[in-house]
Amino acid sequence: MLTLGEKIRGVFAPVPTPFKDDGALDGNGWEKNIALWSASPLDGIVIAGSNGEIPFLSLEEREFLTRTAKEGSAGRLHIMAGAHFPSTDETIKAAGRLAAAGADSILLLPPHYYKGKDEALVKYFTDVADESPVPLFLYNMPANTGVDINIEVICAAARHPNIRGIKDTSGDMTKLGYTVLRTPDGFSTFGGTGNWFLAALSMGACGGTMAVSILFPRSCQMLYEAFNDGRISEAAALQKRLLPVSDAITRRFGIPGLKRALEAYGMTGGSCRRPLLPISKADAGELLKVIRDSGLDEYETWRNNR
Amino acid sequence: MLTLGEKIRGVFAPVPTPFKDDGALDGNGWEKNIALWSASPLDGIVIAGSNGEIPFLSLEEREFLTRTAKEGSAGRLHIMAGAHFPSTDETIKAAGRLAAAGADSILLLPPHYYKGKDEALVKYFTDVADESPVPLFLYNMPANTGVDINIEVICAAARHPNIRGIKDTSGDMTKLGYTVLRTPDGFSTFGGTGNWFLAALSMGACGGTMAVSILFPRSCQMLYEAFNDGRISEAAALQKRLLPVSDAITRRFGIPGLKRALEAYGMTGGSCRRPLLPISKADAGELLKVIRDSGLDEYETWRNNR
Amino acid sequence: MLTLGEKIRGVFAPVPTPFKDDGALDGNGWEKNIALWSASPLDGIVIAGSNGEIPFLSLEEREFLTRTAKEGSAGRLHIMAGAHFPSTDETIKAAGRLAAAGADSILLLPPHYYKGKDEALVKYFTDVADESPVPLFLYNMPANTGVDINIEVICAAARHPNIRGIKDTSGDMTKLGYTVLRTPDGFSTFGGTGNWFLAALSMGACGGTMAVSILFPRSCQMLYEAFNDGRISEAAALQKRLLPVSDAITRRFGIPGLKRALEAYGMTGGSCRRPLLPISKADAGELLKVIRDSGLDEYETWRNNR
Amino acid sequence: MLTLGEKIRGVFAPVPTPFKDDGALDGNGWEKNIALWSASPLDGIVIAGSNGEIPFLSLEEREFLTRTAKEGSAGRLHIMAGAHFPSTDETIKAAGRLAAAGADSILLLPPHYYKGKDEALVKYFTDVADESPVPLFLYNMPANTGVDINIEVICAAARHPNIRGIKDTSGDMTKLGYTVLRTPDGFSTFGGTGNWFLAALSMGACGGTMAVSILFPRSCQMLYEAFNDGRISEAAALQKRLLPVSDAITRRFGIPGLKRALEAYGMTGGSCRRPLLPISKADAGELLKVIRDSGLDEYETWRNNR
Repeated sequence: MLTLGEKIRGVFAPVPTPFKDDGALDGNGWEKNIALWSASPLDGIVIAGSNGEIPFLSLEEREFLTRTAKEGSAGRLHIMAGAHFPSTDETIKAAGRLAAAGADSILLLPPHYYKGKDEALVKYFTDVADESPVPLFLYNMPANTGVDINIEVICAAARHPNIRGIKDTSGDMTKLGYTVLRTPDGFSTFGGTGNWFLAALSMGACGGTMAVSILFPRSCQMLYEAFNDGRISEAAALQKRLLPVSDAITRRFGIPGLKRALEAYGMTGGSCRRPLLPISKADAGELLKVIRDSGLDEYETWRNNR
Repeated sequence: MLTLGEKIRGVFAPVPTPFKDDGALDGNGWEKNIALWSASPLDGIVIAGSNGEIPFLSLEEREFLTRTAKEGSAGRLHIMAGAHFPSTDETIKAAGRLAAAGADSILLLPPHYYKGKDEALVKYFTDVADESPVPLFLYNMPANTGVDINIEVICAAARHPNIRGIKDTSGDMTKLGYTVLRTPDGFSTFGGTGNWFLAALSMGACGGTMAVSILFPRSCQMLYEAFNDGRISEAAALQKRLLPVSDAITRRFGIPGLKRALEAYGMTGGSCRRPLLPISKADAGELLKVIRDSGLDEYETWRNNR
Repeated sequence: MLTLGEKIRGVFAPVPTPFKDDGALDGNGWEKNIALWSASPLDGIVIAGSNGEIPFLSLEEREFLTRTAKEGSAGRLHIMAGAHFPSTDETIKAAGRLAAAGADSILLLPPHYYKGKDEALVKYFTDVADESPVPLFLYNMPANTGVDINIEVICAAARHPNIRGIKDTSGDMTKLGYTVLRTPDGFSTFGGTGNWFLAALSMGACGGTMAVSILFPRSCQMLYEAFNDGRISEAAALQKRLLPVSDAITRRFGIPGLKRALEAYGMTGGSCRRPLLPISKADAGELLKVIRDSGLDEYETWRNNR
Repeated sequence: MLTLGEKIRGVFAPVPTPFKDDGALDGNGWEKNIALWSASPLDGIVIAGSNGEIPFLSLEEREFLTRTAKEGSAGRLHIMAGAHFPSTDETIKAAGRLAAAGADSILLLPPHYYKGKDEALVKYFTDVADESPVPLFLYNMPANTGVDINIEVICAAARHPNIRGIKDTSGDMTKLGYTVLRTPDGFSTFGGTGNWFLAALSMGACGGTMAVSILFPRSCQMLYEAFNDGRISEAAALQKRLLPVSDAITRRFGIPGLKRALEAYGMTGGSCRRPLLPISKADAGELLKVIRDSGLDEYETWRNNR
């Protein structure tokens, strides 16, 4: 858990929200998943991120997910929760309520329906940071938002003492490198996908938030440690195995694919809320084959202990 | 007002939602505006569209706006209300409630945080259409959503008897032309801005939804009638005057600019909700000069009668 | 033919360059085509534009095409020739040589491999305009160049007395409208496709350069005259017929499609140079069906006189 | 120098072409530069790439540059030369002539004025590969071409025995990783900029083509060796120093900036051909400050020996 002044690091899992077929939140499934993730080598989880179907979640649902995760993990996991709503006031309210529910930090998308000027983005981030009881982690997700937060905005926001990091999924290595160079020491730069976790680390990132770590947390941690220990060929070999799996459960087959994969590993994936469509049988077959072929299962020894 | 089988036509105003400085809805301002628009040559208004700050409006607020508009206009205006929420279920609920509050039709954005396949877009539109008590009008707004609904999706959706038109702001004249050619006769194709209302009409559109008609409804109606009557040089001259004004209150100065312009004409513009920033003094001056220079005031004779 | 101070107007055909199967220029085919176009209602032709496979044409070939067209048309057609080469010096040389070969005006793409600042675009245009013996017509073609010349650049360039117009294919009606409003009276704004010729005219364009006029020049002229005479419903009906044909021989099936269509009307289309691929049999069938179904043949009475 | 079957690896410099103020090629400057580069730790140079102002170079000029480089480097450098011309036939001719002039391999852009289908890209690459006397290196440069060669095209092309690598500047780490995974062992995947050389290596690249290596070849080689030897923190520290310099001489200040920097290190930068604009004094000052501040000079000990 983050203490004052401590830098956020490590491997974070942006977890999906399990729904029943009728769209209701599956609380039991969630509790079961939290127990599993707490027993895993993960450093933290991200609730109500893109994989968590954030746009479909009410504040009450996000509070429930956060509270349950906090209690279920008993301090074993850093709990980061997505507070974004379109208006600043709703977001501030959400940050406060999610912190009260146990969030250790807040993940924050930029406003995006109206494509604001840089000035408007910085103001949104700092307005929320002023009011949030816990630190903020910016969330750059241009594929979904159509907004690619630029380096000037990141640097301006990073000067706020309550803005403590960024998850960047843009894949722009130049920006990632500049983010590391131009933000304060305590600011955390995270890569936003397992597709290129090692590339992000090589540019100076101190962690990653990646869907593949839900299924293969130890593989991700091994890569992270191998990089930090200078065992670079081992890290590169792990990255090669992670890429196709990471890509399959995100870009290729989306959240329905990710949820299908969870089911294959004894977690509760459940349904997606509409308008997301279920994964087809053919796609599910292809997805599971990619996972099987990766050979990553051999590293996930913690599963035997649970 | 639309009766069964009647095609939606004419000049529609996508009106802003007036807020007080603290972000609260300004109900008195809204009632005053409705009275003014009801006395104007407008055919209809669009509530909770992009100018209406749809992402910041709760369902309860949309219901209030709709009910008040319906009562205040006493049948003089077609009331179209934006029902979009990120999830299908919330949207269906909203469509029902807005219809109950008096909406004559529903304006419907596509899902856009997750960039869905065509199939997912069509399913969203038809799922909502199946349940909505009043007809749907699709809303293509790629500048805000990052989703440009393509012609195949439009045609597939237009086959549903309860999907009765589209407001297209993309400005893609090829698509607009195909939409007219390939949708049923009763389906309405509307241009989505006054910047090129005449161009849209020339491609076969039967109406337009445009911010400039809030300020200059008669100018827009004169253009529309001139086109329909074959007085093309008159229509073209009006289009030339409308362009800079229309562009200034939309693309150039945004909703804060539009609201400032309303104030200049005795309507309640009010504040925007955060994170939208207020218009600067310099921009407001430039905006009002563009409006003044247009010379459109001379056509708005109805103002004297109110 | 353009005389000093005369504004360029009307219907221009951006014609393809006929090649033999081995890639050699088909001079006889070209002469035959020129004879046909000279007997048609076209106002002018554009040589070495995008349809003319400009990137594959040497300066010598462009000179041959221009000289032959000038002689073959005997003053009946305005001859506009594409002078663009990547460097300014090559382009200036080409403009001089093409003017000497008989070009009445020069069509000019912006530099585009290196995405220049506005300042660099204006300088390129005015540097060439300073040296060109005949007027320049700018050519905005973002789909091919990746550069969308903005309104500030157009206005700055239009102040040069030797820059006399623009062919804009971007389809941005706001920009087209502003171009008409903000350039000098003698500056010609042309729409760049038959897909939305009427929309361009309605925004103030004084002509169009469009592939569909190669096949259906009289239909295009009828639309143009109907618009100018205020017979707007006739113009709109023609636009509806032109759209699918225009779209098929440009965006949908490309230059190979256009050349195939020429063959169907007794003109020499010939092959494309590699790397352009030939049109498939299935596509050719679909293309010819679209043309047949348009019913435009009935207007092309001039064909009987040739 | 590449021998049959040998994989292309290491640090390659995409060098600029020195021009005199009147635009003429500066042959003496070129010879001087070649002598310097031959004495440096570079593995190879790329002639007539984007930095080499390829679109402005005639085939004769490319031959001169290649021949002079081959002779001047006396086998010390791998010579890769850009053969792209818009048409396949011109490109094939260029590949043959550049090979005859001494090119060890050919750098090949995709066709890009006409945005071809995948099929057309593969055919262009393999048609040239069939005829080229020396191996081809594909060149993905979407910022300039507007074409981002996708993984399917890369894999299809890589099956041709004479297509031996790719320089990818897209920065898409997912694609880079897949390229390494899905192409034959002898196929070389190169990162295309020094901004993120280490990230590319971490994804499996076996070399890089980067402007910064013209100025700081030993720094680049040290990074490359540190990575290969598992001294990852040393490699990461070098990457942090390289980023701002690499970015300044490419994206930020372009070829004029790169040429200015060459002059500061005793190489001949010279002028750019029009329409490229010269670098402003202020920009040059900023650029030289970035270089100075990097502290990279301390590693370039080879300079003392020349």
